[in-house]
Amino acid sequence: MNNFLELVARRESCRQYDSRPVETEKLLRCLEAARLAPSACNSQPWYFRVVTAPALRAQVAKATQSDGINGFTDGVPAFIVVTEEHAKLSQRILAKCDSQTYAQIDLGIATAHICLAATEQGLSSCIVGWMDEQKLHELLLIPQDTPIRLILCIGYAANDTLRPKKRKELAEITTFLE
Amino acid sequence: MNNFLELVARRESCRQYDSRPVETEKLLRCLEAARLAPSACNSQPWYFRVVTAPALRAQVAKATQSDGINGFTDGVPAFIVVTEEHAKLSQRILAKCDSQTYAQIDLGIATAHICLAATEQGLSSCIVGWMDEQKLHELLLIPQDTPIRLILCIGYAANDTLRPKKRKELAEITTFLE
Repeated sequence: MNNFLELVARRESCRQYDSRPVETEKLLRCLEAARLAPSACNSQPWYFRVVTAPALRAQVAKATQSDGINGFTDGVPAFIVVTEEHAKLSQRILAKCDSQTYAQIDLGIATAHICLAATEQGLSSCIVGWMDEQKLHELLLIPQDTPIRLILCIGYAANDTLRPKKRKELAEITTFLE
Repeated sequence: MNNFLELVARRESCRQYDSRPVETEKLLRCLEAARLAPSACNSQPWYFRVVTAPALRAQVAKATQSDGINGFTDGVPAFIVVTEEHAKLSQRILAKCDSQTYAQIDLGIATAHICLAATEQGLSSCIVGWMDEQKLHELLLIPQDTPIRLILCIGYAANDTLRPKKRKELAEITTFLE
């Protein structure tokens, strides 16, 4: 395989989805990619709730919307709700830091795996961090002490044309000490 | 491309490296993959210092070692030091959360892109979060208010044989609400 950069370039945040449902086996491949992700001390501090049931989906969508943000989520065929679970770190590490010190980084890694696995399968995605967390706790019966970090939107894009990516230049974000 | 899961399966944390240096163009491809990663409000809250200079590399390695942890880093040919930079979020988002709320997740996403780009190019990697951050601030002249989150080890593995991955089963980390 010599086209990981092409896969990365093809992944973009999609805010307009086709109504076509997402095949369960494709969602399972996304989750398998997350399952195999690395994490601090292999702690795997993650749990994924896949929401495709129409009535529940509509409520999850509403919980991501406020102040004019995320109106597009009404049309998302599948959500993956990402929670931060207790991280079992090694005792030597715990002597110097909190159990959750690396958990958000680990969730980011797993999220990247999901989004890239989606792209590879012709799906599109959008990572949403803006939400009414309390409402989602109640809706999905998630324990209060379990932070809900991200809602991943997954589906087929209504439009296949990619936008140019706006990013800082490499020289703005890197230094070589060689 | 239909083998992203194979790429994910091939990425493993490597703690024994060959002394062969890493080609600059391969490091640049890793960084390009990170550059194109998604982030909250496209804030790109990251900076990457690539350390390959032997004397400096040795000091970075020492700064990741204590209490018997990370002894292997002496043999790492290239480090990528990942810092968390100020995240410019939109005003609507900032009204409800801190500028850095999503930054660690974003660093995790960029880190995943780097490690997978390394794997695709025949390189191995290890994500290190255990470090003497103060020592690294001084060594690399990184401003005190800029958190150093991760040190990525990059190089050719001394041994090509993959270990079986130990992970929770999919049923332990997922629920389908469909």
